Amino acid sequence: MMIELTPFLNKTVRTPLYIQLYQYIKKEIEEGGIPPGTLLPSIRYLSRHLHISKNTVESAYQQLTAEGYTESKPRSGIKVLPLEKPLVPSGHFTYPERQKREEEPARRYDFQYGDIDLDHFPFKTWKKCLQDAMNSDSPDLFLYGDRQGDKGLRAELAKYLFQARGVRCSLEQIVVCSGTQSAVSLLCQLLPSNGRVVAAENPGYDGVHSVFLNHGYTIRPIGLEPDGIDLSQLAESRAKLAYITPSHQFPYGMVLPIQKRLKLLKWADQNDAYIIEDDYDSEFRYQGQPIPSLKALDTKENVIYLGTFSKCFLPSARLSYIVLPERLTEQFCERFGRYSQSSSPMIQRAMYLFMKEGFFERHIRKMKKVYQEKHQTLISAIEKHFGHEVNIIGEKAGLHILMEIRRDIKDLISKAEKHDVKVYPVSDFWIDPNESPSSIVMAGFGGLSEQDIEEGVKRLYQAWFA
Amino acid sequence: MMIELTPFLNKTVRTPLYIQLYQYIKKEIEEGGIPPGTLLPSIRYLSRHLHISKNTVESAYQQLTAEGYTESKPRSGIKVLPLEKPLVPSGHFTYPERQKREEEPARRYDFQYGDIDLDHFPFKTWKKCLQDAMNSDSPDLFLYGDRQGDKGLRAELAKYLFQARGVRCSLEQIVVCSGTQSAVSLLCQLLPSNGRVVAAENPGYDGVHSVFLNHGYTIRPIGLEPDGIDLSQLAESRAKLAYITPSHQFPYGMVLPIQKRLKLLKWADQNDAYIIEDDYDSEFRYQGQPIPSLKALDTKENVIYLGTFSKCFLPSARLSYIVLPERLTEQFCERFGRYSQSSSPMIQRAMYLFMKEGFFERHIRKMKKVYQEKHQTLISAIEKHFGHEVNIIGEKAGLHILMEIRRDIKDLISKAEKHDVKVYPVSDFWIDPNESPSSIVMAGFGGLSEQDIEEGVKRLYQAWFA
Repeated sequence: MMIELTPFLNKTVRTPLYIQLYQYIKKEIEEGGIPPGTLLPSIRYLSRHLHISKNTVESAYQQLTAEGYTESKPRSGIKVLPLEKPLVPSGHFTYPERQKREEEPARRYDFQYGDIDLDHFPFKTWKKCLQDAMNSDSPDLFLYGDRQGDKGLRAELAKYLFQARGVRCSLEQIVVCSGTQSAVSLLCQLLPSNGRVVAAENPGYDGVHSVFLNHGYTIRPIGLEPDGIDLSQLAESRAKLAYITPSHQFPYGMVLPIQKRLKLLKWADQNDAYIIEDDYDSEFRYQGQPIPSLKALDTKENVIYLGTFSKCFLPSARLSYIVLPERLTEQFCERFGRYSQSSSPMIQRAMYLFMKEGFFERHIRKMKKVYQEKHQTLISAIEKHFGHEVNIIGEKAGLHILMEIRRDIKDLISKAEKHDVKVYPVSDFWIDPNESPSSIVMAGFGGLSEQDIEEGVKRLYQAWFA
Repeated sequence: MMIELTPFLNKTVRTPLYIQLYQYIKKEIEEGGIPPGTLLPSIRYLSRHLHISKNTVESAYQQLTAEGYTESKPRSGIKVLPLEKPLVPSGHFTYPERQKREEEPARRYDFQYGDIDLDHFPFKTWKKCLQDAMNSDSPDLFLYGDRQGDKGLRAELAKYLFQARGVRCSLEQIVVCSGTQSAVSLLCQLLPSNGRVVAAENPGYDGVHSVFLNHGYTIRPIGLEPDGIDLSQLAESRAKLAYITPSHQFPYGMVLPIQKRLKLLKWADQNDAYIIEDDYDSEFRYQGQPIPSLKALDTKENVIYLGTFSKCFLPSARLSYIVLPERLTEQFCERFGRYSQSSSPMIQRAMYLFMKEGFFERHIRKMKKVYQEKHQTLISAIEKHFGHEVNIIGEKAGLHILMEIRRDIKDLISKAEKHDVKVYPVSDFWIDPNESPSSIVMAGFGGLSEQDIEEGVKRLYQAWFA
């Protein structure tokens, strides 16, 4: 069976003729206009018939055959193959706009934790570093890059970690990741499963809890004492993995004292357990020096250290890192030998330059002052406006505080919004949100100016007490 | 018990005096020089005794108390607390250089798959896009950014995917990720576990196999027929999830024909299964147009589409994307509501600009030509030098080919290295590497110039046959 084809081919549009012809025949096959078994006209015939070149017809036929619509039979021509069922209609398309979820309106005085100060960020220097990275000759920067992260960046990190956090490690122990959650996801894939149980401070960082849960872990919630994690609860949990924020408990802000650190390490050693130390914002302590890391005391290789550039630099760099215990490095290489690095080599290289030139150290020094002032402004404003109505929790470090107030906070949060102020509930930080206190709100101050902090607190008082 | 402290404080070094004092006392406590229970000298006394300010002493004491070495007792002074055991010695530190694993020497003619052509990459335009992104006023670009990815980029992707791949999707279905492996890791966390079994083409992409295995999946290997995945084996596998490269099978290169695509979709529909379609390099077909995606035929929402910028743009952008079936979008939001986006908002925005201004389309068009010529050069060189000694597999698309040769390839690979040429084994692509044929090597040609391709093939012949 041979047929006549009478496509309308338009020589004035941009679509090449062979594609027009291919699309025409394909549509006819899909819609049943050309039944299976049909022989298409010969190339020579169709080219004459349609006044187009033989090449055009041949290209259209080749495409049809490549996609399996037709089959090329030596000496008998191009035969149409059967399709199981008619296909979806084709046609012009603009992507569907789904009905929007209602977006929350932005608030002028938004005490969002996670926002950082951008007014003092050295954009010019950072741009320069990015440019210098882009001007590099090394193809490594434009391909996949080193699986564990840029070597130069890892060397800078090793130096920084020793100087600032007391961590001693080799480059082989450092793994660059694209955020703390990526890091924890890798650890979930790496660590011995041990029944997939992890002990975690309760309350703690919900973003990481989420990763554990999504990897099939059961979380054993460990309560807090005034000086941090309750070690007897930890012992009872029988977990062989613990996730902890020892230098600035999230969200309460206490520091785990040296005695408890030593006990914690002893627990890990005796139980052959790993401790994941999340050291997310230790750069910003407003009294004295940063607290040395737990990892600095870890002689038995039980502590896995996590750091991030999201608080001390820029969240959008999406850069974090793991320091593995030496004894896990080989296993890491084996387990992830076929993985690519997930953070961009271009950004890693820019970060390397930024650290190497001393800009990072300078930036931290400056931001410590900036945040200290914001922090002081926030504390003073709360004390001034609220007096004893509010108890401030976790006031010596970091980029947020908790406010404890003898009222139901659900009501307070929506009242605040009416005054253009946003403060946040903390319930998500509890592994069982139902157990969270109803009297605490969170206020991050990193992204607000001192003026806005002052005004925001004033409005908060008006919203709640006026 | 009260003691005398006699630290040596050096006013000529950069370390502040209070830190020197704090470090001195801390070391004494740790090494037992100051026993627990000791009362430290009063601030006033020590400041006179050491000729330093009261502030200096106070800061040192505060730090010790913050870290838990001492405790401040109202009216009785600063008391040293007991430590469980002596700590590690402190001291100066340079990070340990671990004994290097022996790195393989670079080869001049390296047919590494994954390398791309950098000579024709529009670095200037890309740098401009990065700069323009950095000059944006939107704080979103410097904070965590949209969890599912830059909205502008997703809109450009939706348009591109429709035009180039026949995929119809809303922005809510697109999830930007930092590489195909990150994407698959998210899917492993998202999809119903169904006994954690995935059917995968055998051979197939080992990088993704690895992710499945690390997430506790069992892989059911599905053999290939000359026109792609063996559907009867798939049916027998009883898997409810399949990972497939239908438009350019990796590594063999065949195209799954339309009839098989329809059957595959029917399989998914009847078994309530998901198909992960990895469409990693469909931009580069050297005969006719790209093959439309499987997703374009998916009326029942069973196909999860994966795309990447690593082949068609730049691996170091670390940008990939998932197109979720509509019915998975809500579950995605729930499951990952507390996750941050792992690719940098700065790079996403630059990519958005690059696409919006039409540079991306132009780039693809240009690279298709560039790779077509390299590909032609490779094929011609092999035919010229090897004649019928080598069978070329998968020769119409992509950035690599396979060479089948009646010899043991282990020997051939090391012989090639002696002639400064690197070609690669394929055994890792087999789920059981022992089942891999011993007669096939892989040659990627993306990163080599035509001249180097020609010379590399010539040397390969000399290495193997001369």
